Amino acid sequence: MHEYMIGRFKYENEIFYGEVKDDRVVVNRGLYSDTFLLSDLQLLPPAQPTKIICVGLNYRDHARELNMAIPDEPLLFLKPPSAITGNLGKIIYPDASSRIEYEGELAVIIGKRCKNIRASEAGSVLMGYTCFNDVTARDIQKKDVQWTRSKGFDTFAPVGPYIADPTQDVSNLAIKTRVNGILRQDSNTANMIFDVPYLVEFISSMMTLERGDVISTGTPPGVGELFVGDEVEIEIENIGILKNTVVSQY
Amino acid sequence: MHEYMIGRFKYENEIFYGEVKDDRVVVNRGLYSDTFLLSDLQLLPPAQPTKIICVGLNYRDHARELNMAIPDEPLLFLKPPSAITGNLGKIIYPDASSRIEYEGELAVIIGKRCKNIRASEAGSVLMGYTCFNDVTARDIQKKDVQWTRSKGFDTFAPVGPYIADPTQDVSNLAIKTRVNGILRQDSNTANMIFDVPYLVEFISSMMTLERGDVISTGTPPGVGELFVGDEVEIEIENIGILKNTVVSQY
Repeated sequence: MHEYMIGRFKYENEIFYGEVKDDRVVVNRGLYSDTFLLSDLQLLPPAQPTKIICVGLNYRDHARELNMAIPDEPLLFLKPPSAITGNLGKIIYPDASSRIEYEGELAVIIGKRCKNIRASEAGSVLMGYTCFNDVTARDIQKKDVQWTRSKGFDTFAPVGPYIADPTQDVSNLAIKTRVNGILRQDSNTANMIFDVPYLVEFISSMMTLERGDVISTGTPPGVGELFVGDEVEIEIENIGILKNTVVSQY
Repeated sequence: MHEYMIGRFKYENEIFYGEVKDDRVVVNRGLYSDTFLLSDLQLLPPAQPTKIICVGLNYRDHARELNMAIPDEPLLFLKPPSAITGNLGKIIYPDASSRIEYEGELAVIIGKRCKNIRASEAGSVLMGYTCFNDVTARDIQKKDVQWTRSKGFDTFAPVGPYIADPTQDVSNLAIKTRVNGILRQDSNTANMIFDVPYLVEFISSMMTLERGDVISTGTPPGVGELFVGDEVEIEIENIGILKNTVVSQY
């Protein structure tokens, strides 16, 4: 695990950010700090976005797998904030679908309101990095023209567990997805077509980004099916492991 | 104008809802009420949604105009909350597009957090109705697979001016768009394929709706181009008139 990890926690009725150090969480209170046992706190999703902007088809190896041309520009779509769940949150298999799939991704959390950010300055607007699972009802995606419904169900946006150091280089990190412990996606962020600074420039040229907004950067090859009872883990080197289980709607 | 209209206002540093009565605004303070001159207040967009859910191709006469089949299910897409602007707000013509268009629509504002609402109970979760302009960069929409970018630019979601009575029947209302005073869209909500109760049931079956969320119900025939300097008005019978002007990005 990378040394600098921030989590969003709840304890009794208070919600706060704290730095995770092994089994402890240190909360900066200004003039002093409080230390909690990690196991005493409820972990929340690391951000409350006003929007979740996702990028389709952003890995060269995934484009090859699908026999599709490398896109000229990022392909964007939105997931609703109501789809967010955190680490260890349940992915609810909706009755409306008979095929849901995982898509492991590196996500960026925006640290401040911004517009028209140049790629060279993108680092200055990041709160940090985290893991994201762009859960998709593949049968509905194939039927609908727009992806909003297939990717917009409640719990279809697991994100977390923590916020990792925004100053690190994310251009060469291993990214893996495991289902019930079996490796299903195994790539590297070096295969991204549009890197994080480019995406921040491209997206912020059209829409104002708010603190807490999430940009998820696309999935590598190997997407596949999830079933009720499955445990799915997205692991990104230096960023963390996001673990969720799939449960029935009933 | 219908008798019951609620606006969201700013006065000095306070933001509040108030009932609009001719040139006055009455603000309920609990045990008493304050009255302001409408002209003394800054009108804000009527809601701060966590998501804006739009419906494509939801008017029979518009589907005929496009020579397209009547859809079996609502076609959904999202606009980001950062695209919101209110009545008299400016629509900024983005440099990235060379053809932007108006789409006048009836919108619903959700009044409380809800999930799995049946059509017969949809009335109980509405804050009210308002006008919406689903501004679209048509050239980008034609190029992109997903509509997120073409419909997601800042200021591409004018909404307002007020929130009209949620208890009224909206199944037979005149809906018109004028550009510089010239009538460009002229239809009736009776031409909707999926009505408001159906849409609330359909959308809330997949995503939790939050107070302030906006559902916009699709546009009638007659969509067309906007140019810098144009004044565009969406008028819906009993709901209000939403007026915006188009300005250059520079």
